[in-house]
Amino acid sequence: MSAEARALARCAELATLSSRPDALERVHLTPEHARANALVADWMQEAGLRPWQDGAGNQCGRREGRTPGLPALLLGSHLDTVPDAGRYDGPLGVVMALAVVERLRDTAGLPFALEVVGFGDEEGARFGTALLGSRALAGTWDDAWWALRDRDGTTLAQAFRDFGLDPDRVGGAARRPEELVGYLEAHIEQGPHLEAADASLGYVTTIAGARRFHLTVLGEARHAGGTPYSRRRDALVGASEVVTAIERLARATGDHGCIATVGRLEVSPGAVNVVPGRVDLTLDLRAANDAVRDAMWERMQAAAVGLCTDRGLRLEVVETHSAPAAPCAPWLQRAVVDGIRSTGQPSPPGLWSRAGHDAMALAAVTDVGMLFLRCHDGISHHPAEDVREIDVARGIAALEQAVLAVARDVDARAAGGAA
Amino acid sequence: MSAEARALARCAELATLSSRPDALERVHLTPEHARANALVADWMQEAGLRPWQDGAGNQCGRREGRTPGLPALLLGSHLDTVPDAGRYDGPLGVVMALAVVERLRDTAGLPFALEVVGFGDEEGARFGTALLGSRALAGTWDDAWWALRDRDGTTLAQAFRDFGLDPDRVGGAARRPEELVGYLEAHIEQGPHLEAADASLGYVTTIAGARRFHLTVLGEARHAGGTPYSRRRDALVGASEVVTAIERLARATGDHGCIATVGRLEVSPGAVNVVPGRVDLTLDLRAANDAVRDAMWERMQAAAVGLCTDRGLRLEVVETHSAPAAPCAPWLQRAVVDGIRSTGQPSPPGLWSRAGHDAMALAAVTDVGMLFLRCHDGISHHPAEDVREIDVARGIAALEQAVLAVARDVDARAAGGAA
Repeated sequence: MSAEARALARCAELATLSSRPDALERVHLTPEHARANALVADWMQEAGLRPWQDGAGNQCGRREGRTPGLPALLLGSHLDTVPDAGRYDGPLGVVMALAVVERLRDTAGLPFALEVVGFGDEEGARFGTALLGSRALAGTWDDAWWALRDRDGTTLAQAFRDFGLDPDRVGGAARRPEELVGYLEAHIEQGPHLEAADASLGYVTTIAGARRFHLTVLGEARHAGGTPYSRRRDALVGASEVVTAIERLARATGDHGCIATVGRLEVSPGAVNVVPGRVDLTLDLRAANDAVRDAMWERMQAAAVGLCTDRGLRLEVVETHSAPAAPCAPWLQRAVVDGIRSTGQPSPPGLWSRAGHDAMALAAVTDVGMLFLRCHDGISHHPAEDVREIDVARGIAALEQAVLAVARDVDARAAGGAA
Repeated sequence: MSAEARALARCAELATLSSRPDALERVHLTPEHARANALVADWMQEAGLRPWQDGAGNQCGRREGRTPGLPALLLGSHLDTVPDAGRYDGPLGVVMALAVVERLRDTAGLPFALEVVGFGDEEGARFGTALLGSRALAGTWDDAWWALRDRDGTTLAQAFRDFGLDPDRVGGAARRPEELVGYLEAHIEQGPHLEAADASLGYVTTIAGARRFHLTVLGEARHAGGTPYSRRRDALVGASEVVTAIERLARATGDHGCIATVGRLEVSPGAVNVVPGRVDLTLDLRAANDAVRDAMWERMQAAAVGLCTDRGLRLEVVETHSAPAAPCAPWLQRAVVDGIRSTGQPSPPGLWSRAGHDAMALAAVTDVGMLFLRCHDGISHHPAEDVREIDVARGIAALEQAVLAVARDVDARAAGGAA
């Protein structure tokens, strides 16, 4: 079986590990997460990596380089999914990393250890806060997260214990900068630009930082029939005005400006004949530039406060996630470009990523670079997510060549340092 | 203890039978429903009624009149609640009926049997379709309802079996017109009009019929970051426009025109970083006049289709409930008015009920009359629901006198018929 066919078969196998029979959903610290880690650990063993699960539930594997104990070049992506997910967002980057490690088995020793990581949480689908796995590894864990709760009221701390992890030992997952050479991640583009450019692969220049908010609109639950409009403080009508205002403001910035999404909205008490008294909703806000994004949030918040006040509603806002834009290191951008060129694509497009990635978190502890693969119609976070086998083949080859380019850089730096 | 104090204490005791520790929620065919029925059966026994649970889960009790086997005058209301409910909507009418039966224990035999009914489902909070209990008693059961499902996917048929009921025997709950004299129901107003008129009690002229719809807005789930606005078909933004359009259209008819409520709205897949692909929402629509209501629905549907089409979304509509306006029988309106006057309120207000009631369903099989009690600030379907003890005292006295007025009418008719 070719490396690309095997990578696709592995994505299919991982897609069977789901909490739902009818769709793919594999969120943080669930039995499905444990099964995915076990499966990836087996593959790591086959590839000659020493596997372990770290203190945050990330599945790691390592093969030593030229000499034991060298700093590591990390390759990887995440194993968690959104609800009703496609099978490539995350897992494809993990299985491509494994394919590269398998192909490099017979080369002369590298000037670094090779590690593959399957992060346990990138999406944040269970606890609302994203990148829990990669931020543990980057050493930027925040103890305030232990109190985060999922929809069933389970805290993150309890979920750690239920998974067999010890919250007191999450620090053990953290890596120090001197242990690392860098981090390279392959990922589907999750957007339409490579397909529009008729290109298999692209390199990432910077990753936009998302801010996420939990908004609560508070009105008063009342009887649907008996309460005239003059007496109503309907939290859902107010929230609906907020949702449309958010879209209007972001959309006015154009396709290359801000992107805002209300992905979750819950109505209480949620009965057919009761005026809604409370609505909880989430806002995910991104832009190429942090200042543009932050100014947009100020405008959105002011609009939401105004709309709620006009209806006698109260608005509560909690910021649940904030990440600055993370630039990819120029030398790793070059390594990725060299890798892509070696596959016969002379002018790879440079893209900024509107989607967040584990590489954003890793940027806090080491240099990062990213390779994007063309995906069908820009679709992601949906079962129709799809990639072409030829692009996966080119991606594996490009990532392998990027690793070798990094090796040349490291050797050249060592030689320069010795000179 | 006075009759009114006991009635209020019984409402408090029923309010402890809830599926949630933090709020009152007692929906159809649940363990709490069974406990409420058992408690009311005990009270019926104390009041000298022979209790039984009918084939639809309604708690009934009967005391014979002047001679055994006479047609029955039914008194009652419902024992189920909405989620996060107040304690008076429904249960107050049942305990007031019991208070009246207790006070009439020593009177000479009546020309009818007295029955009290605690209906098992009026709100429709569990299966979306309302009045399941009273429609079973009225003999207007629809076998299509067996396939209705609650949020957990349990069908109504299965819920019957889980409750110890046999779906094949629901017909046993149906009463024939010749078995019945009429139905009288006491209920909190669930609106602000009696309080505004400084009146304890009012009588109902007609009950507006609600129509209920389940609307589904279908778009496409996509990645929140990667999908530019030009590629989005966001079901939640579309649904939000529909919600605000519904309010705008209904509100324009004024406080005495149409009332429309979107009480439930669910987003799929419902993740912070996924563009919503599907939204399910309910619409409850009422008006004093069925033709006005139906014309409004046509306008709302046209507006919703237009908004969805503009966004590349698809709209699906299912009507889940429809009830025609149910007028109260003039002779029972007069009996209720006589009852209210006997409490020292010479000109009781006549109101049309925007809220649905079991009396609507009963109107299919017998004449109905309703007594409304003032409630605090018009609040209902909310924990802050409240009544004054003096109004309950007056209400019990008025309902007792209304029963005696009905007895006089029945006797007069019998005399007229014999003449």
